[in-house]
Amino acid sequence: MQHKTATSSTAIHDILNRRWSGRAFDASKAVSREQILSLLEAARWAPSCFGDEPWRFIVWDRNSDPVAWEKAFTCLGEWNQDWVKNAPVLLLATANTVFRKNGKPNVWGQYDTGAASENLCLQAVAQGLMAHQMGGFDADMVRREFEIPEQFTCMAMIAVGYQGEETVLNDELRELELAPRNRSALGDNFFEGYWEKGIKTS
Amino acid sequence: MQHKTATSSTAIHDILNRRWSGRAFDASKAVSREQILSLLEAARWAPSCFGDEPWRFIVWDRNSDPVAWEKAFTCLGEWNQDWVKNAPVLLLATANTVFRKNGKPNVWGQYDTGAASENLCLQAVAQGLMAHQMGGFDADMVRREFEIPEQFTCMAMIAVGYQGEETVLNDELRELELAPRNRSALGDNFFEGYWEKGIKTS
Repeated sequence: MQHKTATSSTAIHDILNRRWSGRAFDASKAVSREQILSLLEAARWAPSCFGDEPWRFIVWDRNSDPVAWEKAFTCLGEWNQDWVKNAPVLLLATANTVFRKNGKPNVWGQYDTGAASENLCLQAVAQGLMAHQMGGFDADMVRREFEIPEQFTCMAMIAVGYQGEETVLNDELRELELAPRNRSALGDNFFEGYWEKGIKTS
Repeated sequence: MQHKTATSSTAIHDILNRRWSGRAFDASKAVSREQILSLLEAARWAPSCFGDEPWRFIVWDRNSDPVAWEKAFTCLGEWNQDWVKNAPVLLLATANTVFRKNGKPNVWGQYDTGAASENLCLQAVAQGLMAHQMGGFDADMVRREFEIPEQFTCMAMIAVGYQGEETVLNDELRELELAPRNRSALGDNFFEGYWEKGIKTS
């Protein structure tokens, strides 16, 4: 079992620090219904433009509905299936393209949905779970299989479960699992006062 | 001083619970440089598709560069200016439209940037600060004023500072400040197994 904390130059909150996208799930441990509800509650309380809550999530719990879980699983790319097979819970995050209140285009739909998913992933950390978001799925297939209206954009699938031993992974994935987390230098993406004036950390 | 916790049916983590978008800032309290760096670090460690880190943020600190802060402030809508005038720190979150590594369109750019901004807002809570995201700004103006390349979409401006007394707000804003937070019922946006099959909370 490993913890990959962020190597940040200044302190950040524990659950932000400990969140990372691992792939070694423990297939033997189910996620309780109460835990699933807390994950969704966390997403529910994310902020959104005009309070429109543009996100819609579907959750599939292998424990309570293996048929639906399997249908969702088949929408994943082969490379992801190889490790998601051990994750007891799958989710899909979709973003409304229009505002609920007036039907006009909502340019913040995906941005706000990203915030809701991040809340969900952080809540997973708080509950001792691991959540891993994926872009690698067949968006047309999941739309077709679950009759998702065109009005909603399928953004990410998310695998959730308890962390397992990295020995459940194949060699390639295990190497990724054990590699340190890394990010660009702070000043590469965070500017001070002016575009591309990288912020100095000292 | 008020705390508006989420009224969720199941427990969620404290910093997710306490995050809300207040408007009553204390103009007399600056945010330290170390605090600003921690906010940015929190955003830096958000997840992103292929680890591309599509977000770019500009931070304006009234305390260290009042001229640049003022220039950013003028890009806000009048309604927002009325309360943001008390916020010592402003930020702009922008999303890369293409992948850094190969220049191809990145359909997760806005989604991932939303996650980074949420991390920043949660870190603000952890530090005893308040962060409030806004879509109400002139995106063309901020692009022009700060020479932001077309490749990046201007998503949100964010006001950060210490919470102040709600008496700093005008009547209309004070009413909003004191109103309870609310969200749609969980089952309206969170489905179980199938589209629009709202999850049951009991």
